[in-house]
This record gives sequence, C-alpha cells and structure tokens, in this order.
Amino acid sequence: MQTPQSLYPTDDTVGTMTDLYQLTMAAGYFHNGLHERRACFEAFVRGLPPNRSYLIAAGLEQVLHYLTNLRFTDEQVGWLKDQAPFQGISPAFFEYLRQMRFACDVWAMPEGSVFFPGEPILRITGDLIQSQLVETYVLTCLTIQVLVASKAARIVWAARGRPVVDFGARRAHGPMAGLLAARAALIGGCAGTSLVEAARRLGVRAVGTQAHSWVMSFEDEQEAFLRYADLFGPHTVCLIDTYDTIAGARKAVAVGKDLSGVRLDSGDLVSLSKQVRQVLDEAGLRHTKIVASGDLNEFRIAELLDRGAPIDLFGVGTEMVTSHDAPALSLVYKLVESEDKAGVMAPRIKQSAAKATLAGAKQVYRQYQASGAMTGDLLARDGEQASGAPLLAQVMRCGKLQMAAPGIQRLSDRARDQIAALPPELRELSSAAPYSVTVSEALRSLQPNGSDLSVE
Amino acid sequence: MQTPQSLYPTDDTVGTMTDLYQLTMAAGYFHNGLHERRACFEAFVRGLPPNRSYLIAAGLEQVLHYLTNLRFTDEQVGWLKDQAPFQGISPAFFEYLRQMRFACDVWAMPEGSVFFPGEPILRITGDLIQSQLVETYVLTCLTIQVLVASKAARIVWAARGRPVVDFGARRAHGPMAGLLAARAALIGGCAGTSLVEAARRLGVRAVGTQAHSWVMSFEDEQEAFLRYADLFGPHTVCLIDTYDTIAGARKAVAVGKDLSGVRLDSGDLVSLSKQVRQVLDEAGLRHTKIVASGDLNEFRIAELLDRGAPIDLFGVGTEMVTSHDAPALSLVYKLVESEDKAGVMAPRIKQSAAKATLAGAKQVYRQYQASGAMTGDLLARDGEQASGAPLLAQVMRCGKLQMAAPGIQRLSDRARDQIAALPPELRELSSAAPYSVTVSEALRSLQPNGSDLSVE
Repeated sequence: MQTPQSLYPTDDTVGTMTDLYQLTMAAGYFHNGLHERRACFEAFVRGLPPNRSYLIAAGLEQVLHYLTNLRFTDEQVGWLKDQAPFQGISPAFFEYLRQMRFACDVWAMPEGSVFFPGEPILRITGDLIQSQLVETYVLTCLTIQVLVASKAARIVWAARGRPVVDFGARRAHGPMAGLLAARAALIGGCAGTSLVEAARRLGVRAVGTQAHSWVMSFEDEQEAFLRYADLFGPHTVCLIDTYDTIAGARKAVAVGKDLSGVRLDSGDLVSLSKQVRQVLDEAGLRHTKIVASGDLNEFRIAELLDRGAPIDLFGVGTEMVTSHDAPALSLVYKLVESEDKAGVMAPRIKQSAAKATLAGAKQVYRQYQASGAMTGDLLARDGEQASGAPLLAQVMRCGKLQMAAPGIQRLSDRARDQIAALPPELRELSSAAPYSVTVSEALRSLQPNGSDLSVE
Repeated sequence: MQTPQSLYPTDDTVGTMTDLYQLTMAAGYFHNGLHERRACFEAFVRGLPPNRSYLIAAGLEQVLHYLTNLRFTDEQVGWLKDQAPFQGISPAFFEYLRQMRFACDVWAMPEGSVFFPGEPILRITGDLIQSQLVETYVLTCLTIQVLVASKAARIVWAARGRPVVDFGARRAHGPMAGLLAARAALIGGCAGTSLVEAARRLGVRAVGTQAHSWVMSFEDEQEAFLRYADLFGPHTVCLIDTYDTIAGARKAVAVGKDLSGVRLDSGDLVSLSKQVRQVLDEAGLRHTKIVASGDLNEFRIAELLDRGAPIDLFGVGTEMVTSHDAPALSLVYKLVESEDKAGVMAPRIKQSAAKATLAGAKQVYRQYQASGAMTGDLLARDGEQASGAPLLAQVMRCGKLQMAAPGIQRLSDRARDQIAALPPELRELSSAAPYSVTVSEALRSLQPNGSDLSVE
C-alpha cells in the first residue's frame, strides 16, 4: 500500500530543489569546461508591487541554511542519470555533482533592511555551475519573506502603535509557508504569532484566544467563558461573536478581573467595538482589551481607527500571510559578470527589450541626513569608493558562513529603525513618488550604449 | 555560533504545527471532561474566487500524511508546559498529549473532484480535542493545492489542447509551496513541472529549456545553442530572446533536426511567434515547437491563441503557483455536530450574521444525465438515502488509512473527466450562473429557524 507523502523539503533533498534547466545547464557548463569559470549573479526586484513605496529584506537566514547544506545524495544522482535528457552525459558530471559543496562568496543586505527596485539584496560570486544552480531556491526563499515582511510593515504602520499579531497559519500556502510567513511577519513588526511551531523555533511567544467551536461546545456561552478563565486565569480572551456580540460581551464580564480581552471576528467592528467598550467599562473592566480579527488588512485597520473604533490589538491572517493584494514579486536573479577568455571578470547584460539589467557587480550606498533620515541610495560598482553606508555585507566566504544567525528581535528592530528613517511619505499606505536611487558614474560607464539605466 | 534555520516542517514537529488556541482549547476540553465527547467538523468553501465557476479538490494526500503522523514529542510537550498560558494546567493533560494518536474517522472527496461552495470536501469525526486540533494544518494543506489545481485547470483549458507546464518553483511561497504547487498543477492538468524534486517524488518527468545566463556564458549565441545540442541532442530547446528574437531563431536553426523547440520569454509573443514559425518552417524545421513563457495566465493565453499565435507549449509560473488573482480561499473548518449530554450526536451551528454554516454531518450527491453530463449536486444528511453518486468516501477509520495513495495520473485523469462533465459555461474563463447545489429536505429540517440556507 502506497503511503501518503508529506512533500516536506529536507536537507537530503535540497540538491534537486531546483528547476531542471539548472541541472542541464550545469552539465553543459561541465562538458564545455566552463564549470570553474567565475560568475556573479545578483537578486533584485524590477519594480514595486501596487501601493508599496519600499520593501523589507527577509529570508536570508533560510537561504544561508540552504547554501550550507546544498548537496546531491547518491539516490538523487542515480535518479538524475536515468532521466531522458541526461542519457548522453558522462559519469564525470554525476561524480562532480555528488562531490559538490557550495563554495561561493555571498554578499547580502541584512534582513530587516529597507530596499528599493534595482538594488541587489543578494550577490553570489563563484563558479558558474554553483552560482547558477541555486537561483530557484534562493528566489523562492526570499520572495515569500520579502512579500510578507513588507506587507506586515504596512499593516503594523496602519495600526498606529497597537499590536498586530499573525493569525495566518491556516491561510498560508502550505505548512512551511506558514512558518516562513510567521517569521517574516515578526520581522515586519508583528508582536506575535499564533503558529505554535513558529514561536517555538523562533524563540517568541505564541498568542491566541478561542475559536467558535469552544463556545459551541458548552450549552451556555457564559459557561464557556467561565470554564476557560478557570484554567487560564489572566490569559483569558473570550470570543464573543458566536451568537450576539453585545450579549456575548455582557456574559464575558462575568469572568471579572481575569478577562484580559474579548475578540470580535465579524460584524460592523466600529459600532460593535464601541458598544463592547462601554459594556466593559461599565463593568469596571477598563483594562480588558478589545481584539479584532476577520479579513483585516492595512486599509481596513486604518479605516477602523479613523472611525474611532476602540480596538486595542489586531489579529491579521489571510491578507498578510498571502500578501493578498500582491502575492508575487518581480524578484529576479541575473548574471551581471563572468570571466572572459582571459580570466578577467567582465560585465554581462541581457539586452532584450523591457527587461534590461544593469551589468556589473554592485554595492548599494545609503545617504543619510545628520538626523538619521534617509535621503537617497547610490548604486555603485562593487569596490568603488562612494559616500554613504554600504548595505551589502559579506555573509559567506568560499561557502563558509561569516556570521551567526541573528535572533528575530534584532531583525525586527532593524526594520523598525529603517522604516522610521524613511522619507515620511514613503510610509503611507498609497505609493509616493519613488525614493531616489541613482547610478554612480563608474557603474554607468560600465553599461553598453543605449541600455536602459532606469532602476524603477 | 547560531546556525541558520531551515524552517522545514518535519514529522517530529507536526504536533505544534497548529494555532495556539487549538492547544489551549484542548487543555480546556480535557479539564472539563469533554475530550472524549464526539464532534464532527467539515471543511468547505464559503464562496468562489473571482471568475471561477468550480474548484478542484486537492491536497488530501498531504492531509492524510499529517493525520497519520500527528504526535507530540517529549521536547514539544516540555516546551509547551513552560509557556505562560499553560502554567496552571495539570500534568495529566501533557501526558495525554504525549500519548495521543489520531483516531478519528475521515471522509473526503477524492483529489481531482470538482466541487462547489457549501459542499464539504473533508469531514472529520472523533473526539473533540483531535478533531479540533487538526484544523490549522488541514486548511493550509488543502488551500494551496485547491487554489493551484483550480487555477491550473483554467490555464490548461485556455491552452486548448496545447500542453502547459509548471515553471513556477521560484515564485511559489517558499520551497514546500513549490512542491505542493507542482503537485496541484499536475492534478489540474499540467503536462509536467520544471521542479526536479517534485518530478522525482511524484514519479513524473521534469521539463526545462535554457536560461539567459546559458546564452550569455558563450561569446556567441549560436555557439551556446550548438554546444547545448551537442550534449542534449533531441532534447534541445533554445531560448532565443536574449538579444534579438528573430536573429536568435535564425541562429537556433543551425542546430538542425535536433532542435526540439525554441522558447520566447519576452516581447510581443503574437508577432514574434509568427515570425519565428516562418524562420523555422523555411529551415525545414516544421517539427520544432515554439514554447512561450513570461507572466502568462489563462487570459493572456486565450488572447495569444485568439490572435493566431502559433505557440505549441506554454510554460506558466507566477500566475499559476501563487493563484495570482485569487491567492486565498474562503475555506473553513466548522463544527457541525457534537454529542449532547445524553451522548447523542446533535447538529451544531454558529449563528452570527453573514457567516452561517449548515448544521449536521453531510454527504454530497451528484446528479448526472445519461450522457454523463453533471446536472446538479444535492447536499444531504450523512446516511440519508438520496439519488445520485455520493462524493465523499471514507479515507480513515479510527485513524487508520482505508486506501493507498493514488498516483498523480489517476488524480489528473479524474479532474479532466469531471471538468469534461461540467455544464460547458462553467468551464469558461469568466464566471457563469452558479451550478445547482440544493439542500435536501432532511438537511433543511435540521437547521434552526431562520438560518441562511444559501450555499453560495
């Protein structure tokens, strides 16, 4: 009997977590003696999703785990050999794959950094096979976390200081996406996640309330609330909209001082939260918080607060973990340099219309006012002397990690600080005039005539 | 030095792959003596995403893997004990968790089935703790695969018999989402996937062509094509848009009879494909196929074919694997029955406005014409005698699997056959009048007065 498959990725299978053409091209490089030629690839976004004026870098830690563990097992190599396109490939290539360990140099923007279109967030330099092969996994790791961290930052901004927590595990694109989205949501500023395994692995507190099924499992709504408080004391948050929200609030107050919060998950949240606040206050429960959930996003939260809804905490799921209004990102991974026949790294560029890339390995220099406010970024050649703070740092040298993985708090602190340093209009929920990203003279002079130098 | 984390799910950590409230409620049920009370939950969608008139069931195999492997390790239990809300919870609960093995009955629609709003695609009946606890994982597993299988079916339909292949791994929401999306795309009718590990695990062929970096790694475009063909012979598909597409086509024909295909990834695909077809035909390469890729979806493919683009195969990524126009689904998991004090299963319903659920365990009966065409579905009480073919089958009895996992081909065959049996207007790319889903008299009489019987 064939047992069901989980489709979990594992460290033993990451070699083949790539597109087939990465492996056929690898065989091609190998047989043409190009596999040890050095190449440089950069990951950058071509443009911003709707309404966004900035993005948050995230996902690097998982990329580094992958690069550290990248290998092909005997089983994978055996399977590959038998696939139709590989029939004419010599055993030497498969032996090369079997022995391969990632040995490239990697530079990256730290997670939590604010970035803009055209700016490399990751640069990989090394032999052509390795630097090419990792494209698929690198992009999928970064994409989901950049999307969710950036969306979370918008939602947290809209909540104007009130905590936002991640309730999205059930809506993410599979179990691992739930973990990745929880991590990215924390980087983007969320105060917690309901996904227990994410909390456990990331060393944060899991958060949660009650489901309707809890309330429905007791004959009486008030009994459901009281039984919960018996066990959980001051951690009691009652879900009060199963039957009638205001009646539910009146029943919840029977919990007394231990009633840490009540949650509203449906209905007109402005009117209901105001009425519920009154019920709570009249019962002397001024400390009891009102939690709102149910298809919230940055625009709905802003509207609720504009209309005076006395909501203290927002639980956000679907819209955040799927980055619902922008579930994809134009993140690409492009060859920008490779060795020429003389063994010298030379700029490379793909010239077909409308998809131009800036040739040459790059560094991003950020300019600040004395106050710490960001004034513009400069895209320069790697190694060029330029003013400003360089954003890409070396994270791997010849495949060896150059730094420990920072804890999640440090990453969310960085994002918070960088968002605070943005020109104010870029933080707004509708997109503003683009942030200034200019191209240095040296980088410009590297480009072939007529190539598009716009980075937007 | 803290090493980077992968955030892979594993069989050893599935217990805590759930929302915190599932575990606090579990503790609450346990301490109130409700943990052995039987309950019945159903998963169903509340409505269809934009433009869709039907959905495809997918993801059950991964749900069954999860349920089969659900357990809490000592490490997880130890961690939970230390979390703030659990401080007052007795050791007996944690021992219960540690010994827990999933023992519910599970009924489900087979993967590849066409389904509609309000119809349960999964029903879990068993003790209240277990049947509740699994909600988070069950929903995340089903959501991504239903979304992608349903989107893939639309894209395959738009391609009018031309093969569609999954190129989306890099755009999926993380590495596991890439595997899940590849599987769902195959169920929805795709002819292959570029994700090697997905092909390996699912027993299908991986597909692929070349990247721009291959072409750019040679001094000369034609040399890049010829070197590839030297190795891969009749498996050679050349990417011809790196510099100038028509000039690229003229260089690709030098490959001769082994030129299996050329790929266009940018530009005006209608005009370019017509010119490229002419170049190929004039070179006597009538068998050489034209592959198109680059931000394709069902609408763009339909337009390309309407305008006469001679494209033979479509590679689709972003739009399909993110279900870009509908990246979330209103899939919910609701309590529909639970034991009353007398130990009798009684219908349950959440009554708050606008989110009504039909109480009672249900079966879906599908009605057909003699020709095999579907004419309507009937939502009936589980166990009720009704005409038509019942869609939910038992897949687990007391936690034991009742069937082997079918291969992917059987699932895609089912989807193809069921889509062929749909009323024709439901297959179109814009949504049609809803398919008829009616509620049996027995199920209707089970509902409290005034509850909303609409299933749309």
